[in-house]
Amino acid sequence: MNRAEIFNQIKKKESFLCVGLDPDLNKIPKYLLKTEDPIFEFNKAIIDATKDYCIAYKPNIAFYECLGVKGWESLRKTLEYIPKDIFTIADAKRGDIGNTSKMYASTFFDNLNFDSITVNPYMGKDSVVPYYDFKNKWVILLGLTSNEGAKDFQFLKLENEKAVFESVIKKTSEWGTEENTMYVVGATRGDLLKKIRTIIPNSFLLVPGVGSQGGSLQDVVDNCWIDDCGLIINSSRGIIYAGSDVDFAEKSKAEAIKLKHEMRKILSDKKII
Amino acid sequence: MNRAEIFNQIKKKESFLCVGLDPDLNKIPKYLLKTEDPIFEFNKAIIDATKDYCIAYKPNIAFYECLGVKGWESLRKTLEYIPKDIFTIADAKRGDIGNTSKMYASTFFDNLNFDSITVNPYMGKDSVVPYYDFKNKWVILLGLTSNEGAKDFQFLKLENEKAVFESVIKKTSEWGTEENTMYVVGATRGDLLKKIRTIIPNSFLLVPGVGSQGGSLQDVVDNCWIDDCGLIINSSRGIIYAGSDVDFAEKSKAEAIKLKHEMRKILSDKKII
Repeated sequence: MNRAEIFNQIKKKESFLCVGLDPDLNKIPKYLLKTEDPIFEFNKAIIDATKDYCIAYKPNIAFYECLGVKGWESLRKTLEYIPKDIFTIADAKRGDIGNTSKMYASTFFDNLNFDSITVNPYMGKDSVVPYYDFKNKWVILLGLTSNEGAKDFQFLKLENEKAVFESVIKKTSEWGTEENTMYVVGATRGDLLKKIRTIIPNSFLLVPGVGSQGGSLQDVVDNCWIDDCGLIINSSRGIIYAGSDVDFAEKSKAEAIKLKHEMRKILSDKKII
Repeated sequence: MNRAEIFNQIKKKESFLCVGLDPDLNKIPKYLLKTEDPIFEFNKAIIDATKDYCIAYKPNIAFYECLGVKGWESLRKTLEYIPKDIFTIADAKRGDIGNTSKMYASTFFDNLNFDSITVNPYMGKDSVVPYYDFKNKWVILLGLTSNEGAKDFQFLKLENEKAVFESVIKKTSEWGTEENTMYVVGATRGDLLKKIRTIIPNSFLLVPGVGSQGGSLQDVVDNCWIDDCGLIINSSRGIIYAGSDVDFAEKSKAEAIKLKHEMRKILSDKKII
């Protein structure tokens, strides 16, 4: 899916919401455990309930991988079930030397047909560029993560007085283009959002941390908005675990609609719709 | 497997060699492709041929993941086939926020019963510590990688004049212990090996890059040797692709024996055996 198509979806859906599909057997409604493939049944219900209100789905691969062969089967079925006009993100945070990165790219782009994959840039250029061999696919690099541990290394000050994350964002932005590279930037990063936008003035950002982690949608929009929106806002737990009983999908739908309404107002204020 | 057991294996086998099990359908002998599970058949032959000369096996997970469900099945069978007194390393380079790291840990430690996993420390403390909940298992952190791209970020100079990789090694060494944490350090790093040893004077190092990538075993030993050896030297392609025909396992065996002999001499010189 190319950038213009993503923007078209944003306008059509009046939303720039991504739903994180992180199904946990300990958290999904108990009655689903009796079905043959509880993970897929859960995802299917969430997709049915939210597909009109979001433009992307982001399965975190760890949640499937930990279930072994069965988990990979659930992931494959989930990918096939997601409507083709919705952007898909393999939240895999992979990163390895060149030849190996090529294999990870093949896994997620060829075999599972994801539109994009999250990549950890720490090992440098040869660990990232193999993903660019795939047309109309996206690399989503860790720019500044939303977790507490981000301060351990991403915030370290370099001799040029920049932080490590600034250098990572700047240098990696020279490897790809704004048509094939996005950045993960945590919504909890307040004042740094504006700084990041100056380094990559025209790249799409994938933003976790709105809602349950305390980040504000309005802050993100105020600091990072660009002409074609340039934002994909992710919510995982806030949507998929909104309910825990037979009506869980209805409750997820209500949460997705709430966020979509906030986003519609923003898109309208910005005269996009 | 605990540290004393690893050292016992080193003395018993007279070797500190790790064989990287990175089977690629495009590289393994053609005749194996006719078997039901070529990847497992290849690994089985390599293990049979080399198990007396190495103390560890390190499958790089990308090589299995890219084959989908079938690849994970080959990986599971491989793990079950490796003799129980040989240390196993899941070369997965995972790294994610706390809850997700716990799932990756469960995948490789519980489900597949690996002794250790390689972890990318870039996301910080909460992405690493969940692995320490598993007893007698090891976290192997990326210290300084052997690839060209390492210079992009790992070599950046901090305001305190240290390089990023030095700060990463120093800080992460406070999270675990020398009984549950090792470091990946590329053999190609020459003069830096000694510096790294001063930061982590008593940790085991997993060292790729000897042989095909140009690193010297003697350099590594001269700079990083400690009382209980403290080194696991990995060779992947140099061993597993030593041959490409029906005698491939014999050729792998010859390569493993060659390295074991070098290591036996070193262990003898150091009066370990």
